[in-house]
Amino acid sequence: MFGAGDVRVVDIPEPTILEPTDAIIQVTLACVCGSDLHPYHSMPADETGRPMGHEFIGVVDQIGAAVTGLAPGDLVVSPFAWADNTCPICRDGFHTACPHGGFYGNWQTGGAQAEKIRVPQASGTLVKLPTDVDDALLPALLTLADVYLTGYHAAHMARVGPGKTVTVIGDGAVGLSAVLAAKQMGAERIILMGRHTVRTDLGREWGATDVVAERGEEGIAKVIELTGGEGSHVVLEAVGLMPAYEQAYGVLRPGGVISRVGVPQYEDAPVGFGSLFGKNATLNGGPAPVRAYLEDALAQVLDGRLDPGRVFDAETSLDDIAEAYRLMDSREALKVLVRP
Amino acid sequence: MFGAGDVRVVDIPEPTILEPTDAIIQVTLACVCGSDLHPYHSMPADETGRPMGHEFIGVVDQIGAAVTGLAPGDLVVSPFAWADNTCPICRDGFHTACPHGGFYGNWQTGGAQAEKIRVPQASGTLVKLPTDVDDALLPALLTLADVYLTGYHAAHMARVGPGKTVTVIGDGAVGLSAVLAAKQMGAERIILMGRHTVRTDLGREWGATDVVAERGEEGIAKVIELTGGEGSHVVLEAVGLMPAYEQAYGVLRPGGVISRVGVPQYEDAPVGFGSLFGKNATLNGGPAPVRAYLEDALAQVLDGRLDPGRVFDAETSLDDIAEAYRLMDSREALKVLVRP
Repeated sequence: MFGAGDVRVVDIPEPTILEPTDAIIQVTLACVCGSDLHPYHSMPADETGRPMGHEFIGVVDQIGAAVTGLAPGDLVVSPFAWADNTCPICRDGFHTACPHGGFYGNWQTGGAQAEKIRVPQASGTLVKLPTDVDDALLPALLTLADVYLTGYHAAHMARVGPGKTVTVIGDGAVGLSAVLAAKQMGAERIILMGRHTVRTDLGREWGATDVVAERGEEGIAKVIELTGGEGSHVVLEAVGLMPAYEQAYGVLRPGGVISRVGVPQYEDAPVGFGSLFGKNATLNGGPAPVRAYLEDALAQVLDGRLDPGRVFDAETSLDDIAEAYRLMDSREALKVLVRP
Repeated sequence: MFGAGDVRVVDIPEPTILEPTDAIIQVTLACVCGSDLHPYHSMPADETGRPMGHEFIGVVDQIGAAVTGLAPGDLVVSPFAWADNTCPICRDGFHTACPHGGFYGNWQTGGAQAEKIRVPQASGTLVKLPTDVDDALLPALLTLADVYLTGYHAAHMARVGPGKTVTVIGDGAVGLSAVLAAKQMGAERIILMGRHTVRTDLGREWGATDVVAERGEEGIAKVIELTGGEGSHVVLEAVGLMPAYEQAYGVLRPGGVISRVGVPQYEDAPVGFGSLFGKNATLNGGPAPVRAYLEDALAQVLDGRLDPGRVFDAETSLDDIAEAYRLMDSREALKVLVRP
């Protein structure tokens, strides 16, 4: 990415092992994330450019001397954040805050929208896939790198379960994943706030019981009405913009939980008596510690209990990745696979 | 209260039953709350004045036609907020958001710093005390109207338990109550941030294992150091001012919980990637639904397992209540009993 709207495929030196805990992965399948659209909208022009992408399945190409449990040729999926998976914070299940971890999509590691990527803390980060995995499952498995498990994280942090009314704000791939996760956790009612019929139709297939197309005060009034005046026990906020945050506390039932997984495009927000405090709201969420959930979800995808792969509705080659961004930005595609 | 620093005792008409669900209570014991000091600092001069006080034990004087379970002569304690205790929100345990409830300290109900007060939704609100209760227990029982159970609410919302490191911000009566509640819930380590030795000494007696007198960046660094660089699993914020909020997310361990019970004197606050989101922090708390916890705590006080009454370190008559405010405002007293 060389600036807003300026995506180019360029040749750069191949990544190499820098630390004995590194692995180099040959990327088999990658994709574009909703969060990649933020710099696509606003990045200042910069001829150095920035490597993009943080979701990938690939084949181990090289490993550092300290890497255990992995060998060249292994097929792996990576969480969107790398982590040692052994420190106290990882043991708590919050790998995205691992003091020895970090994020892809920078000059330190490179990006996943590439032929190869360097993975630090490879033993802790990468999860092996069966070598004989059905190719048709790869898109679903790629969602475990970020999008599905980000939706899952929202629902998990909010303790979604039987008897709960869950409102999902945002009909993007993360919002729809949150619907699917809430359904899997047994939510009684799932209200999806979104206005793109193709997307909300998939949301309904995945478990949304109601769709609210209205936004702002009108959308809030609709959810309050749907919930008999009481509001939603849980709100999963999968957008990251202030109007979505305001909708979230507007539709929340007293004592309820707002779980955010849309990366906030704001720092300050209302939290006082008139928004969160007065109704004893809980606000949580953050970058999903995908690694904590990956093995369970992998088993579910492999045995057919879980199929989150339908968020992908388009595909490009790596050479054509600018088109992948265009398709997602224009909302012609929900989420685009990229094959190097 | 007729304006900042202007507390007067005046004669007003006696409260009367306005709704069949009302009771009139003859106040036996009341007190001044830390939150009463906010208008004491900032209320614009107003010759109408505002009735003050929301914590009381008293004797039922009259009941409305629809009141059940109470009779004139009963000794009762009231939560600081009245509620029907039957609606879905109350059944969830969030009585302070009861759609048929409200707060004392206004011309609708009167205040508890008075001889009599009107209690709406009396059957749902008031809790009977044994008629033969030892007078020496009354201060401890009065803490169940607000201060102790507000500290308890903070610890309860934050799911304090064995193995947890808990940081309490604020050495006022609510902060010290939060220390006591965290100890009762089995917290492994309790770090009390406060600088008034008389108060932090009581905090130590009640279970604080460490006291940090430093504030701001210095205080944050100290707690991070005490927790081996990882931060505190739980922060109980019992102040309500922005520097306390900033300290709270500064000392928080990734994935941890900030529970606020100091009434926020701000509406907007940092919640984005650099404060809450990046470390998957949970923010919760609010006005304590004391009614939800009152019966359990009452049993514990009566049988001697719980003694939160030591937050009271001074007493005045109702006629001298201006002195009670002065003592608390100057920090000469932690919390002042008021006897009409």
